Amino acid sequence: MAAGLVGSEILAIAADIRERVAAGAEICNLTVGDFSPAQFPVPQALRDGIAKALAEGRTNYPPSSGIPELREAVSRLFARRLGLHYPASSVLIAAGARPLIYATYRAVVDPGDRVVFPVPSWNNNHYAHLLGADGVPVSCGPQTRFLPTREDLVRVLPGARLVCINSPLNPTGTAIEADALRGICEEIVAENQARRSTGQRPLYMLYDQVYWMLRVPGVEHVTPPGVCPEMADYTIFIDGISKAFAATGLRVGWTAGPADVVERMAAILTHVGAWAPRPEQHATADLLGDDATIDAFLETQMQGLAARLDRLHEGLSALAKEGLPVEVIPPMGAIYLTVRIHPFGRVTPEGERLATNDAIRRYLLNAARVGVVPFQAFGVASDDGWFRLSVGAVGLEELGGAVARIGEALRALS
Amino acid sequence: MAAGLVGSEILAIAADIRERVAAGAEICNLTVGDFSPAQFPVPQALRDGIAKALAEGRTNYPPSSGIPELREAVSRLFARRLGLHYPASSVLIAAGARPLIYATYRAVVDPGDRVVFPVPSWNNNHYAHLLGADGVPVSCGPQTRFLPTREDLVRVLPGARLVCINSPLNPTGTAIEADALRGICEEIVAENQARRSTGQRPLYMLYDQVYWMLRVPGVEHVTPPGVCPEMADYTIFIDGISKAFAATGLRVGWTAGPADVVERMAAILTHVGAWAPRPEQHATADLLGDDATIDAFLETQMQGLAARLDRLHEGLSALAKEGLPVEVIPPMGAIYLTVRIHPFGRVTPEGERLATNDAIRRYLLNAARVGVVPFQAFGVASDDGWFRLSVGAVGLEELGGAVARIGEALRALS
Repeated sequence: MAAGLVGSEILAIAADIRERVAAGAEICNLTVGDFSPAQFPVPQALRDGIAKALAEGRTNYPPSSGIPELREAVSRLFARRLGLHYPASSVLIAAGARPLIYATYRAVVDPGDRVVFPVPSWNNNHYAHLLGADGVPVSCGPQTRFLPTREDLVRVLPGARLVCINSPLNPTGTAIEADALRGICEEIVAENQARRSTGQRPLYMLYDQVYWMLRVPGVEHVTPPGVCPEMADYTIFIDGISKAFAATGLRVGWTAGPADVVERMAAILTHVGAWAPRPEQHATADLLGDDATIDAFLETQMQGLAARLDRLHEGLSALAKEGLPVEVIPPMGAIYLTVRIHPFGRVTPEGERLATNDAIRRYLLNAARVGVVPFQAFGVASDDGWFRLSVGAVGLEELGGAVARIGEALRALS
Repeated sequence: MAAGLVGSEILAIAADIRERVAAGAEICNLTVGDFSPAQFPVPQALRDGIAKALAEGRTNYPPSSGIPELREAVSRLFARRLGLHYPASSVLIAAGARPLIYATYRAVVDPGDRVVFPVPSWNNNHYAHLLGADGVPVSCGPQTRFLPTREDLVRVLPGARLVCINSPLNPTGTAIEADALRGICEEIVAENQARRSTGQRPLYMLYDQVYWMLRVPGVEHVTPPGVCPEMADYTIFIDGISKAFAATGLRVGWTAGPADVVERMAAILTHVGAWAPRPEQHATADLLGDDATIDAFLETQMQGLAARLDRLHEGLSALAKEGLPVEVIPPMGAIYLTVRIHPFGRVTPEGERLATNDAIRRYLLNAARVGVVPFQAFGVASDDGWFRLSVGAVGLEELGGAVARIGEALRALS
């Protein structure tokens, strides 16, 4: 199994760019789902809290499910900001959101089980492979801003064990709306009601909301139990500080979910040992309890992110208006913009006829010095020109030039 | 599978003690393989290094295999202090030693594969269960200070995929000697030579040396490639800051091993996401490069640990001399002392006839207010009175009273 496991395509593309940068190239790198600390530092309160915890000697093993203060803080955060009531005992802490996704798969999916996930989405194809699951990708397109609907999923839910939804969505930066999510939830509840009479294992939803605090003004964040209360029995939340507080390197994430599933996840993670560092846990507990600090931070953060997303959106929209082969989806949140660049069949000055997303990616990197990630990295099979642009690691002032160079590169095609 | 996974018995015993302490009991807790920061703080250099890294904004994703500075620092540490030459590319960083043990099992063990481990040992039974492996425990006794020999292992190595050795050993605090390790290594090399001609997959050794820097003066630390160079192809080292620097809560561990195995472990850990926090990685890289700071810290640390181990050893030896049912193994390293307390068949003042290790454990907790862990928690099946005593979380001044109370409790038996 291990030998068959492929690495993340995004990391491979990022490594490609790092090599060029090391060789002296100036590249506008829109590929990595991360923050540049120079552009987007973590909250000062988080740094201070870690330093304080270290000074207080909070350096030994945390309890394997997380320190009680943090589990309580997450419980209260969900109550205050999402209207959801999970006891601290149903909250589990780990070294970031990713170990919790892994633990969810391990806890509920056996080899051969059916796992349904929309594509594009992040890494579900890899997790399904890792578990030997029967992964069922469901294609979503621009007509629904790449988000799934009841109609997309209803055919594949019977017999499935897990369905994975992410909102705001990596890679698209779009967010699911209440009606669409409710439709999906109603199908899951109905499926589980039918199963109960036959003793079948339930169908769970992994709901990855790790970007939920990063939304463009006016965009609402909705949750499965929020739109359909019966979903509390079937929803496993994935969340953490990584994206909300630009703290991808500090490794604190959390789950809330049904007590029995969370208990199995905790048993698995005890042996995996993917615990969040203790000083970071104390600092996060303090931060999550401090609404004023959270709000002030998120306001600044979203100003910075929205300015970048808007500049890209406006610049690329202008290229589209000019008649260039560009299409762009308005940003809703996270740190991503979705754009279609589709000069298929056109020929580069070097004589290459562009036939695939990856050829277009390479052309943009070489000719425009802009790094983008094709949707193939998110499980999409078709070459139709869709790309993820990430703004977490770039300065606002880089983006005008980047868009201009994309325009020049597209005009240079014959 | 997840439902069949049992939690760690040690954690369960620790939780039992926490409840009594919360209810007001004063207990000398010798159960937890951890450090009390009040007794054994982490190096000041480590705290300062983390604070510095935070101030410098080192808060975003580390590379998934660890920051290059830390992989280089581990490579140089192995060269300087162990005489072993691993390139940084064969070093992998994770959130503590535990995720690396998990990744080793995942990388080399398929369901049904044979995994050989001496008992007592820590958690190998759980990892074998987790992987659906055919776990083969090999009993070791006091005549070899609970460490395995060539003769113990030779029968079970044919057909095995992984053999797990830990030195200094948790739970016994004893360390394997060069001749004994060389004997085992020669068998593994011979087994692999035989396999090469038939195309069988190799037999690997997981060598957990996480306690190697904590040794009583005069005790040597030996490694498989150090005593048998051909073992470089088959040895996967498990190591980290958790025990050496009393930093169990800071979550930094490392592996060095054959390039292809380390690559598979890295691919698995990318999806598990058990990455060490970035500020801690930078601080650890600086610390591992600073021999003077390491030496000064370890000298103080071992003084504190040896004083505690010696006091327990002397006190319990005196009880044995008195004729009480006590036997004790001289300490060699780690934070553990091995003691046999074997009043089997004797009757407590409450009228309980002591028949099992767990009955003795409960009697010591109730009558002597001393918490100890029976070897059952380390995979031993037989009730013969052996216990692990851990000194990382107790003050020296507690230990005289604890030994005296054990003596009183044993004298009170009829």
